[in-house]
Amino acid sequence: MNNYKIRKALVEDLSAIIQMLAEDDLENNREDVKNRTPYLSAFMRIYSDANQELMVMEDYYQNVIGTFQLSMIPYLTSKGGIRAQIEAISIHKDCKIEEVSRQMIAWAIERAKINGAYLIQVSTNSCSEAFISCLNSFGFEEKNQGLKLKLV
Amino acid sequence: MNNYKIRKALVEDLSAIIQMLAEDDLENNREDVKNRTPYLSAFMRIYSDANQELMVMEDYYQNVIGTFQLSMIPYLTSKGGIRAQIEAISIHKDCKIEEVSRQMIAWAIERAKINGAYLIQVSTNSCSEAFISCLNSFGFEEKNQGLKLKLV
Repeated sequence: MNNYKIRKALVEDLSAIIQMLAEDDLENNREDVKNRTPYLSAFMRIYSDANQELMVMEDYYQNVIGTFQLSMIPYLTSKGGIRAQIEAISIHKDCKIEEVSRQMIAWAIERAKINGAYLIQVSTNSCSEAFISCLNSFGFEEKNQGLKLKLV
Repeated sequence: MNNYKIRKALVEDLSAIIQMLAEDDLENNREDVKNRTPYLSAFMRIYSDANQELMVMEDYYQNVIGTFQLSMIPYLTSKGGIRAQIEAISIHKDCKIEEVSRQMIAWAIERAKINGAYLIQVSTNSCSEAFISCLNSFGFEEKNQGLKLKLV
C-alpha cells in the first residue's frame, strides 16, 4: 500500500486540482480549465475561512493525486455541536480509489476529532461502490437523502 | 395561509429554539434543555461566522415557530462556486409543516441567489413526506446519499 502525504492545498496546486475536477466532470461543462480566475477567487475565499480546509494528497514523487475539502460547521443542534463535512473529493484517474480514499477518510476523521466535531458527514453523488464501501468500513452509515436545486 | 416573518435569530430566541430542537429529538438524548451554556457558545460561534445565518420564523403573535440555518460554503468545484446548504430545520409541533417549510425554502432560495450561490442543497433525515414534497415542488431533486459517523 502506498503512503500518500496529506497537506493543505497551496495556490501552486491549483492547476493540478482543476485538472482532476475537470476529469471528474460528468456533466462535461461543470468545470473550465481554460479560465483559472474564478478558481483562484474561490481558493482565496476558502483559504481565508478558518472553518474550511482544502487538502491535497501527494504521492512519493510529490504529484498531486487527490483533493478534498473538510468543513467545520457550527450548529445549535446536538447541544451546539460542530459537524465536520467532507466534500469536493477528487482522486486522480490513475489511482486506486480504495487506497486513496482510505487515507483521506482516516485523516478527516482524526482532524474532525481534533476540532471537537461530534459527527462527520459525507455526501456522495458518485456511484463508486469502492468509495461507499470504504466509508462503511470506518463505520459510516447511510442516514439521509440529499436534495439539490441548481440556481444558475 | 399564514404569513410568517423570517428574521435572524437573536440570543433572546435561544430558549424557544432549544425547546423546538428538544421536541424534535428522536434519539431522546440529543438535546439538553437544562444546560443552555453549550447552546449559547454555539450561538456565538454561528453569529460571528459571516457564512452562517441562523434564522427563526415567527407567527403573527411573535412566537417563534420555526428555525433553520443557512450556510454558504465556498468550494473549488463548479468553477469555484458557492454552495448554499440548509440544515438544522425545526418546526413547532403545533404548526403545519407544509405551510412553514414552503416559506422557509422560498426565503432560503432567494437568500442563496443574493449571495451568489450556484446551488442550494438540503439533507433530510426526517421521514416527513410533507417536507420532501415541498422541496420537490420547488424543483429540488434527490441527488445523493448522505453517510454519517458519530465521533463521540
